[in-house]
Amino acid sequence: MTRLSARRAERRSAAGSGGVPAQAPWRALRNFYRPIEVLSADHVEFIHEASLDVLERLGMDFWSGDALDRLARAGLVVDRANQHVRFDRHWVMAQVAKAPAEFAIQARNPARSIVLGGDHVNFSGVGGPPNCSDLDGGRRPGTFKDFCDLVRLEQSLNALHLVGGQPVASIDLAAETRHLDVYRAFITLSDKIWSPSALGRERIDDGIDMMCLAAGLDRDALARTPMLLSNINTNSPLRVDGAMLDGAVAMVEAGQPLIVTPFTLAGAMSPVSLAGALTQQNAEALAVIAYLQLVKPGAPVIYGGFTSNVDMKSGAPAFGTPEYARATLAGGQMARRYKLPYRSSNTNAANMVDAQAAYESEMSIWAAVMGHANLIYHATGWLEGGLVASFEKMVLDAEMLQMMAEFLRPIVVDKDSVAIDAMEEVGPGGHFFGAAHTMARYETAFYQPLVSDWRNFQSWQEAGSRSATDRAHTISKALLKAYEPPPLDPARLEALDAFVARRKGEIARAA
Amino acid sequence: MTRLSARRAERRSAAGSGGVPAQAPWRALRNFYRPIEVLSADHVEFIHEASLDVLERLGMDFWSGDALDRLARAGLVVDRANQHVRFDRHWVMAQVAKAPAEFAIQARNPARSIVLGGDHVNFSGVGGPPNCSDLDGGRRPGTFKDFCDLVRLEQSLNALHLVGGQPVASIDLAAETRHLDVYRAFITLSDKIWSPSALGRERIDDGIDMMCLAAGLDRDALARTPMLLSNINTNSPLRVDGAMLDGAVAMVEAGQPLIVTPFTLAGAMSPVSLAGALTQQNAEALAVIAYLQLVKPGAPVIYGGFTSNVDMKSGAPAFGTPEYARATLAGGQMARRYKLPYRSSNTNAANMVDAQAAYESEMSIWAAVMGHANLIYHATGWLEGGLVASFEKMVLDAEMLQMMAEFLRPIVVDKDSVAIDAMEEVGPGGHFFGAAHTMARYETAFYQPLVSDWRNFQSWQEAGSRSATDRAHTISKALLKAYEPPPLDPARLEALDAFVARRKGEIARAA
Repeated sequence: MTRLSARRAERRSAAGSGGVPAQAPWRALRNFYRPIEVLSADHVEFIHEASLDVLERLGMDFWSGDALDRLARAGLVVDRANQHVRFDRHWVMAQVAKAPAEFAIQARNPARSIVLGGDHVNFSGVGGPPNCSDLDGGRRPGTFKDFCDLVRLEQSLNALHLVGGQPVASIDLAAETRHLDVYRAFITLSDKIWSPSALGRERIDDGIDMMCLAAGLDRDALARTPMLLSNINTNSPLRVDGAMLDGAVAMVEAGQPLIVTPFTLAGAMSPVSLAGALTQQNAEALAVIAYLQLVKPGAPVIYGGFTSNVDMKSGAPAFGTPEYARATLAGGQMARRYKLPYRSSNTNAANMVDAQAAYESEMSIWAAVMGHANLIYHATGWLEGGLVASFEKMVLDAEMLQMMAEFLRPIVVDKDSVAIDAMEEVGPGGHFFGAAHTMARYETAFYQPLVSDWRNFQSWQEAGSRSATDRAHTISKALLKAYEPPPLDPARLEALDAFVARRKGEIARAA
Repeated sequence: MTRLSARRAERRSAAGSGGVPAQAPWRALRNFYRPIEVLSADHVEFIHEASLDVLERLGMDFWSGDALDRLARAGLVVDRANQHVRFDRHWVMAQVAKAPAEFAIQARNPARSIVLGGDHVNFSGVGGPPNCSDLDGGRRPGTFKDFCDLVRLEQSLNALHLVGGQPVASIDLAAETRHLDVYRAFITLSDKIWSPSALGRERIDDGIDMMCLAAGLDRDALARTPMLLSNINTNSPLRVDGAMLDGAVAMVEAGQPLIVTPFTLAGAMSPVSLAGALTQQNAEALAVIAYLQLVKPGAPVIYGGFTSNVDMKSGAPAFGTPEYARATLAGGQMARRYKLPYRSSNTNAANMVDAQAAYESEMSIWAAVMGHANLIYHATGWLEGGLVASFEKMVLDAEMLQMMAEFLRPIVVDKDSVAIDAMEEVGPGGHFFGAAHTMARYETAFYQPLVSDWRNFQSWQEAGSRSATDRAHTISKALLKAYEPPPLDPARLEALDAFVARRKGEIARAA
């Protein structure tokens, strides 16, 4: 036991330096479990056929003259007056079949590169909230300082494979040029993969240019080794707006991967029945993916699922519900039906970082991981159905993700691990603390938590009776304090700054 | 929208009467999902063979003269001086094969009867904590009043199929006769299935006699239609004490189902490697089950799994960990290997009802349900690794269980539910709130929460910014206020009271 105590002490001091807790390292994840299937094979085909019926019989609005031109040239029935398209089912399937089942995205730091598709699992930070919150500052509209701090936290949390979209809006920056400041912050504060905003072509083009400068690549080279990822949502039901389509086309033309995510809240933007919401999700995703394959055959795309429901009492969106979990599993089945990588999300509708935030998130995470999502968006920090990025939730989510990552390790079963000799050594009624088998393995045997406190009540109470949210707050502060920016070649930074200055000038002159 | 608003108002008032929230009804659950498998078929066999090796080579302590006699007569190698038995693997397997794969337990209220085995899922309340806590009274040693309130709450929560074991100790009652008061309270306060304590023969015999009086049955009739359930733990590693064995035998002889649950905390009472802990769990469960089949061939028994790990930093037990989740799935695979019903638990090691309590519980619940546990013990109220029964956690768990129950509903996929006509009615860019398809279905379309608050931030803030734990507290109070005891024939109650009085006298005289 003395040897054990000594090692424990060593470990505590290593883990506790500067109050920054030990984290599991950044690690590429594979999912060896069979996916959970909520739909029978017959039901998958039923939804598949129904969604093709929707595209053939009802069609979709595509609010882009460019898109309507291309689709008309491809022989589809286009109603220009109503910006409406009907899709032949065989054409849709032939187009979707051109998309790759699996592809890689390079990070600026090659050790943070990812693969999407197959049994790969990747966690991406929250994107899109207008507000942020922490226990010190409360709930507030996001500023550029908050944005930068959240990106620093995302860079610091090993559980997060990529940064993803903007963790919070920066309302203190000029709207027209905000994306330039934000992209520069992504590139300088993190070496993980980030996402330019697909709201129009200009924002994507700027993002691609800046990534080229940061990586020292030209556009052709970037197209060969994609380094960005973006997402568009449909304007459900059965519509896609022009800005989204233009942004998507700009990504795909530049060879960068794009996620297509219908936003199908059952009872509001899609039918109240889950099968109906899934049919509509599938129709919308297939139509846009088919179109992008027309723009660039073989373009790397991801099937996004975001089917949840509204609370029929209040009309408020509900997340992390049983409906959400089942729709998430079903979405994975549909994506696999088309051999497309699958994106889901870690969602909740809680107004504070409490037990509800945790159980709704767990419902989402389990369904996403066991539905074989390859990319789990909003994996850290999402609160209030996406209206808030929470610093504490970000750390709490990192704990839940780390736990899921550990859950994805197979159990080692062999002569050594079944440990009959250890049982013989210890004997009936003994304990294994000091056994040779234990001593040789205990340091790496078990998951080490980031937030969870497993001390007994008295020790926990003496330490201040702090909740998991309180502890997450302290950890977020410690991580920010210990944060160091990843290295970036000064010449590239200079080029980046020159680009930002030039583009700001151009945008000012155009305004 | 007017029709919808009117119905919403109706529903709100129905749900809100007396502050008691609407709950989903008590409902027998079946699990249509394929179980998640963490072990390959080869690894299941490897652990199976290794555990039979343990029983043959190392054997187990059985601290009961009666058990040693029976096992010696059955031809096993018995070392009486050390109260130790070695088990022939073929004998073990022949015995285990006698146990039924599925059986029913009748509740006093036939509508609360359950089936264990196959794809049935049942949730049972917390059993065993010495302490309880709520936001008003804080953490305290349990009293009989707390015990009764917790049983009332368990009776009131529809998510709970059975009450199970004692939700908290009653330290204000005399230890020798406490079980009599407690059993009387179970019978009068609840019509769900409860568990007598298997700590010795006397406590089981009293429980069986009292259940006979409550149901108006004799012991033979009770043996034909079992109405009780109890649990024993082994004294891991590789030991079972005399009181547990005697209690188990008393249950089995009376035809009542018994759970056998090794308590194999990896690194403490079992090897530090998960495969070793599972091998030991399996060996201990099989040995005791084989013995009980010797006592009464065909006795209904349940394979219990309770493999978690200790925190190697502090030695404290950890629950709801990735190790726990994987061990839970593996335990289900082992139980199915022997065609035995499977018991797991809803666990956590949190010291308060916070996000940690919720995410550790969700890890447990998902693993238990997707590992096809037929009985999930400690499903409501468990806190601090089982040292505390929490009133708020009980309500919060009921929410998580209700959500899981809803998750266990298949998605209806047919012409009506894929709702192409509704999409046609609404059209691109419209909304489904007032659609005919929505109006016909919205009242029952979605899960209705017990604790979750989905209002927007402003409404939630105006209502007091209350956490899920605060809301669970209010709900627990409202449920206790609205509680009414289930009917019991006055003649049976009289007989029960006479029995308790007589037994108290006998026990006092014997002391």
